[in-house]
Amino acid sequence: MTLSVGVLGYRFMGKAHANAMARLPMFFPDAPDVERSVLVGRDEEALSEAAGRLGFESTSTDWESVVDEVDVFYNLGPNHVHAEPSIAALEAGTPVFCEKPLAPTLEEAEQMTEAAREAGDDVPAGCAFNYRFVPAIRYAKGLLEAGELGEIHHVRGRYLQDWLVDPDAPWSWRNDEELAGSGALGDLGSHTVDLVRFLVGSDELAGEIERISGHLRTFVEERPVEGSESGVDDAETRTVTVDDAYSAQLAFENGAMGTLEASRFATGHKNDHTIEIHGSEGSLRFSLERLNELEVLRGDDRGYETILVTDEDDPYVDHWWPPGHVLGWEHTFVHENAEFLRAVAGDREDGEFRPNFEDGLAAQRVLSAIEESDDRGEWVSPSVI
Amino acid sequence: MTLSVGVLGYRFMGKAHANAMARLPMFFPDAPDVERSVLVGRDEEALSEAAGRLGFESTSTDWESVVDEVDVFYNLGPNHVHAEPSIAALEAGTPVFCEKPLAPTLEEAEQMTEAAREAGDDVPAGCAFNYRFVPAIRYAKGLLEAGELGEIHHVRGRYLQDWLVDPDAPWSWRNDEELAGSGALGDLGSHTVDLVRFLVGSDELAGEIERISGHLRTFVEERPVEGSESGVDDAETRTVTVDDAYSAQLAFENGAMGTLEASRFATGHKNDHTIEIHGSEGSLRFSLERLNELEVLRGDDRGYETILVTDEDDPYVDHWWPPGHVLGWEHTFVHENAEFLRAVAGDREDGEFRPNFEDGLAAQRVLSAIEESDDRGEWVSPSVI
Amino acid sequence: MTLSVGVLGYRFMGKAHANAMARLPMFFPDAPDVERSVLVGRDEEALSEAAGRLGFESTSTDWESVVDEVDVFYNLGPNHVHAEPSIAALEAGTPVFCEKPLAPTLEEAEQMTEAAREAGDDVPAGCAFNYRFVPAIRYAKGLLEAGELGEIHHVRGRYLQDWLVDPDAPWSWRNDEELAGSGALGDLGSHTVDLVRFLVGSDELAGEIERISGHLRTFVEERPVEGSESGVDDAETRTVTVDDAYSAQLAFENGAMGTLEASRFATGHKNDHTIEIHGSEGSLRFSLERLNELEVLRGDDRGYETILVTDEDDPYVDHWWPPGHVLGWEHTFVHENAEFLRAVAGDREDGEFRPNFEDGLAAQRVLSAIEESDDRGEWVSPSVI
Amino acid sequence: MTLSVGVLGYRFMGKAHANAMARLPMFFPDAPDVERSVLVGRDEEALSEAAGRLGFESTSTDWESVVDEVDVFYNLGPNHVHAEPSIAALEAGTPVFCEKPLAPTLEEAEQMTEAAREAGDDVPAGCAFNYRFVPAIRYAKGLLEAGELGEIHHVRGRYLQDWLVDPDAPWSWRNDEELAGSGALGDLGSHTVDLVRFLVGSDELAGEIERISGHLRTFVEERPVEGSESGVDDAETRTVTVDDAYSAQLAFENGAMGTLEASRFATGHKNDHTIEIHGSEGSLRFSLERLNELEVLRGDDRGYETILVTDEDDPYVDHWWPPGHVLGWEHTFVHENAEFLRAVAGDREDGEFRPNFEDGLAAQRVLSAIEESDDRGEWVSPSVI
Repeated sequence: MTLSVGVLGYRFMGKAHANAMARLPMFFPDAPDVERSVLVGRDEEALSEAAGRLGFESTSTDWESVVDEVDVFYNLGPNHVHAEPSIAALEAGTPVFCEKPLAPTLEEAEQMTEAAREAGDDVPAGCAFNYRFVPAIRYAKGLLEAGELGEIHHVRGRYLQDWLVDPDAPWSWRNDEELAGSGALGDLGSHTVDLVRFLVGSDELAGEIERISGHLRTFVEERPVEGSESGVDDAETRTVTVDDAYSAQLAFENGAMGTLEASRFATGHKNDHTIEIHGSEGSLRFSLERLNELEVLRGDDRGYETILVTDEDDPYVDHWWPPGHVLGWEHTFVHENAEFLRAVAGDREDGEFRPNFEDGLAAQRVLSAIEESDDRGEWVSPSVI
Repeated sequence: MTLSVGVLGYRFMGKAHANAMARLPMFFPDAPDVERSVLVGRDEEALSEAAGRLGFESTSTDWESVVDEVDVFYNLGPNHVHAEPSIAALEAGTPVFCEKPLAPTLEEAEQMTEAAREAGDDVPAGCAFNYRFVPAIRYAKGLLEAGELGEIHHVRGRYLQDWLVDPDAPWSWRNDEELAGSGALGDLGSHTVDLVRFLVGSDELAGEIERISGHLRTFVEERPVEGSESGVDDAETRTVTVDDAYSAQLAFENGAMGTLEASRFATGHKNDHTIEIHGSEGSLRFSLERLNELEVLRGDDRGYETILVTDEDDPYVDHWWPPGHVLGWEHTFVHENAEFLRAVAGDREDGEFRPNFEDGLAAQRVLSAIEESDDRGEWVSPSVI
Repeated sequence: MTLSVGVLGYRFMGKAHANAMARLPMFFPDAPDVERSVLVGRDEEALSEAAGRLGFESTSTDWESVVDEVDVFYNLGPNHVHAEPSIAALEAGTPVFCEKPLAPTLEEAEQMTEAAREAGDDVPAGCAFNYRFVPAIRYAKGLLEAGELGEIHHVRGRYLQDWLVDPDAPWSWRNDEELAGSGALGDLGSHTVDLVRFLVGSDELAGEIERISGHLRTFVEERPVEGSESGVDDAETRTVTVDDAYSAQLAFENGAMGTLEASRFATGHKNDHTIEIHGSEGSLRFSLERLNELEVLRGDDRGYETILVTDEDDPYVDHWWPPGHVLGWEHTFVHENAEFLRAVAGDREDGEFRPNFEDGLAAQRVLSAIEESDDRGEWVSPSVI
Repeated sequence: MTLSVGVLGYRFMGKAHANAMARLPMFFPDAPDVERSVLVGRDEEALSEAAGRLGFESTSTDWESVVDEVDVFYNLGPNHVHAEPSIAALEAGTPVFCEKPLAPTLEEAEQMTEAAREAGDDVPAGCAFNYRFVPAIRYAKGLLEAGELGEIHHVRGRYLQDWLVDPDAPWSWRNDEELAGSGALGDLGSHTVDLVRFLVGSDELAGEIERISGHLRTFVEERPVEGSESGVDDAETRTVTVDDAYSAQLAFENGAMGTLEASRFATGHKNDHTIEIHGSEGSLRFSLERLNELEVLRGDDRGYETILVTDEDDPYVDHWWPPGHVLGWEHTFVHENAEFLRAVAGDREDGEFRPNFEDGLAAQRVLSAIEESDDRGEWVSPSVI
């Protein structure tokens, strides 16, 4: 059986997923065959060029017809177009793989999740938090689930970029609340929240996030419109309506403490997503810019061991190259596509793909609680927003 | 002129300051001559042994007489004995060098600072935040003051230790609110708060901390009394009345954001005090466990430069060894003693020693705001507590 | 025009190059179209399975017919089959891309290079030293050529692995002089020698390697044959006839010094290839296990700057992902395939692909000099072997 | 009993040892009491100033009388004055502590060692290789002796500085063969050779160095005399008659391989002394610029563990500060002084201080073999020079 895939979005994420699908046959021969059938967008010229380059058989500017026709629908558009097409696809019984964050608002995330519930277990609805599929992160999860870190006391996550530190960096949809929902919080923070939930969210570890104190900041309030002459007095500008950075403090169900942070103003940091965990029996550290490595301290260790997670028995690594031959960022997409498509084809024993829309909604609830807490100046519980 | 020094406290800090004073003649010949005159404590036997080893001429169990007699009084006792002897000394016109945190409570810190104000500029009252005297930190301050990091956006400080992660680690005065004031917050957090104020507190940089959201946790509520048989059912225990860890979010006057954290439960970390700052033009990172190094990114740098701050023209380094011959933790005490004693002797052009009691109080106010915020579950301004 | 490619070898290197060719259309649209036409090998069953998985249209067990038919011939077999098919292809006017080291013996390397010379400039003969195509290495070369490191004084290269440290690790063709030529020296050392030549070999930098002192060691003389029961007394074993590790000292034309080293006995190191260079104006360091990074010190820098070489204007990076989205080991093959195939298609302005067979021969000459020096116990000049 | 100490040399090493002696009472109360009695030198003015600052009771320009009078004689002068006063002291039955390298020539080293042998076991003759006294190095030795690294295969040592990379850096005695013996080789290489011998020199580990191939280079042949106007045509210069850098390859008795290297031209490196060892069961790495750390891989470790060697049960650490409070370079002198003086006082159970003159001679023999090998262009055995 070959699955026909329709993909909405042909920029950064379109390329990342098209590449992932193209690489499955050689490296994940047990994943279902897929046909990159239709690429969906609005600008016909750009769409046509992208479809040729990314290996799609056809294009469409009408997502409504596409979600009915294909075996699987990938929603890789900007956040504000996540909800409607995804819901339509699910109502048509078409499995959906949606980029993160699930939606710009909690309300839309809830509607999407409700649609996924109604579509039922046979219609997978995945949320593409790709960092769950880094081998080092999977390896870390294995250690945590085996209890090697003991009782969890501290969780720390931060995601640092610097592409907006220049006040003349142009305005884009990512600076607009209507289109993006939020700024660093949704774009970067959603990744961190999902990783934290993935790694320590089980009842045996830290459990759910019970209470949150959030803090948001917009450092530059107006940005030049792309193409307008910056620096001149009458440069056209638009208002930034989202955060440039956020931080948060967390209290987990089991009593663990957490701190989160993300910024687009961390000068010198390009894609620096780090997770640190301290438990009663050990600690670990991960940094996305060195994604082949995991630092682990446990048992009788006196210091962190820097592990290159590229051995044959490390998660996913047997599909690739011998030990020490490092993987890149894009491999996370191959892994998540293999897993998601196997769920679509019913090839997974457990039947279920995670992270799903429920996970996307759970992350959204935390993000909303951070915003709410920032508004109110007090701690907020994500379960009651 | 030789200054006679009286020192209250002969344990960890007593040893650190006695060593510092002993090393001045060889390395800081421009510092005043000092005589380690009297060592003050309660346990005569231990006191006598310590006085011999630490090079003191005499001992006393009566601090009240000592503060009158000596030229300088060092208060290195536990936090709950900071206020009374320090105030008495200042009232007697004797300069005071007091260990941090200034006091277990904000009220006492205010009383001490008031005493210092009344004693006047000729009676220096220093608060021994020694990390201001790390060469790499001084070097960082120089960069910040020269504007090399531009406008400050983010400040991050954390201090990680792990000596209480074992629930059978015995109860000590550091676990008691009466004696210590607070736990990780006061012991470790006071250092971080002072460094943050030192580095970015000026009006041209981040300015004062305007608002704070704090979070405290005690992971282990009861600890065995030292010497009691741990693990047996009727082991004698005492209640832990202070925090094991804290975190905080900060909003600075200029709009910068901050996050703070400290813990005695960070498995594998012994004395890991790190400061990270992101400005519009650059970033820097410091870690106490590698205190000879500073990581700096600025100008056209694409990544952090790892600078070994041991060159001859680096702060204080000309007093020691050639480039690349690293210093240790204890050297910070030599530097602060040289500076403080020169202020006592009136040998400083600016006349003033910093950090002083005002700085100690300012830090205390931040710590209190963190506690208050944690109590109330909302943001608090340190200026209105 | 679509180039038909015939590939000899379907294991590790076959997979690496097939993957590279498969990825060209999406990421290097300016590279020529290629058809994976014929996969060549001896074991028909394994060959057929591999051809299916790696996307080849047909298979053949007869390389002699293939080298005539295809537009390009890739020789990815074990070292002892490099010479004959490559020479036959070149004689047929078919461009050849041959894996490293060029040949197991200097004599064969000379014959292959002679064949390449006779085939002429229109028939590219490339030697697949892929590490020249790491973005960070290209970036380093740019700095060196711009004179940013000044006069070169020291070059240091080492390549550490540990897969033979267990004396029960089975014998393979890589342990046999007939099949492999040499051990760590040829397999790992050839990479290091090529990188050193690439980076500092120009006349303006260190120039040619003039004199060499070499040292080889075989730590384990006998190894069990795969499948034989290890640990039992009558386990079948074979003699190891190559080196497990080598080291070398170099004297360059311009007076610079060098040290080289490789081992399969460096416990804990999987694929640790490092290059370090010190010049009068700066220094740099590279490690393959962190291949997205380059450490550089120059100009007024006081320490090494850790550069993440993933910016849009870094070599090859614009073809991939945004800054901070790291690449993996396999991307070096995509880069070298794009470059080589453009040379085959005549699409390169300079007309020439490097590293070519001349580079392969030059590296071979250095390796032979190391062996000769080890035999004779004295310094040897590579130019006179 | 108080030992009176006479010290020849009042510059860098004079200060380092005077400081060490001054710190013993507070931190090593079990070491003998010492009196800094006489400081010996030629320039009376400088000597007098130094004696005051370094705490000596008197000065002398006549070492011959001093070696008779004192209980212990420290020879901290330039290399060419090591032999005569040390031998005279030993002949007078006075214990000698001599800085490294033991002598500028092998011949003098042999004479000194012969004098030490004749003086007998009751007259300790120590050679001040202080890096044996770094806690992390002692800890490493403990691991090696316990067999935790298994059979030793590789040893790598290098010592990088950059203070001569500027061709206008002035000529000094360290550039003169008569006065210094050799350059980077003797000054830096002697430290590395001693550490290698200390760590793996026992019969159970790598054993003696059997064969050596050496390489020396002088990059700048003439240097300006200090004070002469550099850059002008008639600047007075002197010829550099020693090496600026050396490298060596080693073959050990047990079959292990080694590589050594040192340079005064390694731009950006100030005092970067690193040791790396690979054994069949583990590996370790040490760097002097991070001297509180040791990187260790052993047993089931998958990566190097970065150990902060500052725990109470680490070598010498109980004398200093709590865990995580790092030591500096100078502490190595305190440790070696404590050990040497206890040997002088007969307070050591084993009676013997190491490194002694035999160790100094053994290192000298290796250095000489490196020079000899460089001269002859072939491998040389240190035992037959």
